[in-house]
Amino acid sequence: MTHPPPFLEDPDDTRDAIMKATYVALCKHGYSDLTIQRIGDEFSKSKSLLYHHYDSKDDLLLDFLEFMLDQLEEQLPTYREGGADDYIEEIVDSTFSFGDGRPDTDFTQALVELRTQAAHDEDYREYFTRSDQFVRKHVVHTIRSGIEQGVFQEVDPQETAALFQIVFSGTMTQRVTSDDDIFEDARAEFERYVRDCLLAAE
Amino acid sequence: MTHPPPFLEDPDDTRDAIMKATYVALCKHGYSDLTIQRIGDEFSKSKSLLYHHYDSKDDLLLDFLEFMLDQLEEQLPTYREGGADDYIEEIVDSTFSFGDGRPDTDFTQALVELRTQAAHDEDYREYFTRSDQFVRKHVVHTIRSGIEQGVFQEVDPQETAALFQIVFSGTMTQRVTSDDDIFEDARAEFERYVRDCLLAAE
Repeated sequence: MTHPPPFLEDPDDTRDAIMKATYVALCKHGYSDLTIQRIGDEFSKSKSLLYHHYDSKDDLLLDFLEFMLDQLEEQLPTYREGGADDYIEEIVDSTFSFGDGRPDTDFTQALVELRTQAAHDEDYREYFTRSDQFVRKHVVHTIRSGIEQGVFQEVDPQETAALFQIVFSGTMTQRVTSDDDIFEDARAEFERYVRDCLLAAE
Repeated sequence: MTHPPPFLEDPDDTRDAIMKATYVALCKHGYSDLTIQRIGDEFSKSKSLLYHHYDSKDDLLLDFLEFMLDQLEEQLPTYREGGADDYIEEIVDSTFSFGDGRPDTDFTQALVELRTQAAHDEDYREYFTRSDQFVRKHVVHTIRSGIEQGVFQEVDPQETAALFQIVFSGTMTQRVTSDDDIFEDARAEFERYVRDCLLAAE
């Protein structure tokens, strides 16, 4: 049984209830076996509402992705009290722990499947381009702050954030498409990179 | 029109001809729109041969992936005359140039789609686990040689190779699922990492 994240637990309107049902159905069936019918099975209100609001499964899923991005935007702090060095440690931690252990793996699996739709579907591609840009902007901002705070070396924030993005994408893909457990090794090496190439010498 | 790689250009037996047809059809239609029928359309011999040899599209595609891995094993040199530092440069170059520009992008797109099948299909998962292990072993070997040659720092070869694998996987995924061109930036940063964290000081 997949438990939805806290912000989905007690949906307070119809759209939130649809989003919760989508989350649960997506974790249960993955992308390819998902149907509006199956989302409806997780929905407490009338299923006809789903067909009324959405033309297709992809239409609903794109709205769901939009909803998740809004949640991410709300949850990410715009200003942090702590140092950028502590924050970059949190970013590294979430990069390598994302999707590690059920039920998160089910959702990561679905996310990777959704992302792959972008290989041949313009709407998914537009979405993932935009969500990547959002995440990267956030990392760039953190790196700039760290340079100003004197805790980071004078790196190029765009270049550093671009590599972070590649590593984030690679970790997610690797997590759900291979039984090879390379995460501990990869993390140790990435932390060595952060220590030697990003953090200012003590 | 997608041109197959040189080793597929003049197939000298039925299996090679099937592999060539699969490559061309996969580049043309992607995974989701591919059918045995469409592979047959690219095949010069009788289509019934395809149905005779393979039970399903996935059965054929798994054989195709196996064939591609064999080719990779044959093409990778077991012993190289040059230094490991030159070779790691080649690896970085192919990591970031892989799938850059048509017709390669079509094939990369199909590969990412095939890899995503591993999220819910055991046979694909077993294959990609094995091919990842093969590639990583090769990188580990290169790093060990570099340490012995004195051109690399005394790094942990497994950890370094694990990060290379994550970056390789992330680059491929990113290449075909986002319009955001972050490759130049990510490459500059990865090269800085190789310079500072892997190469021995001059």
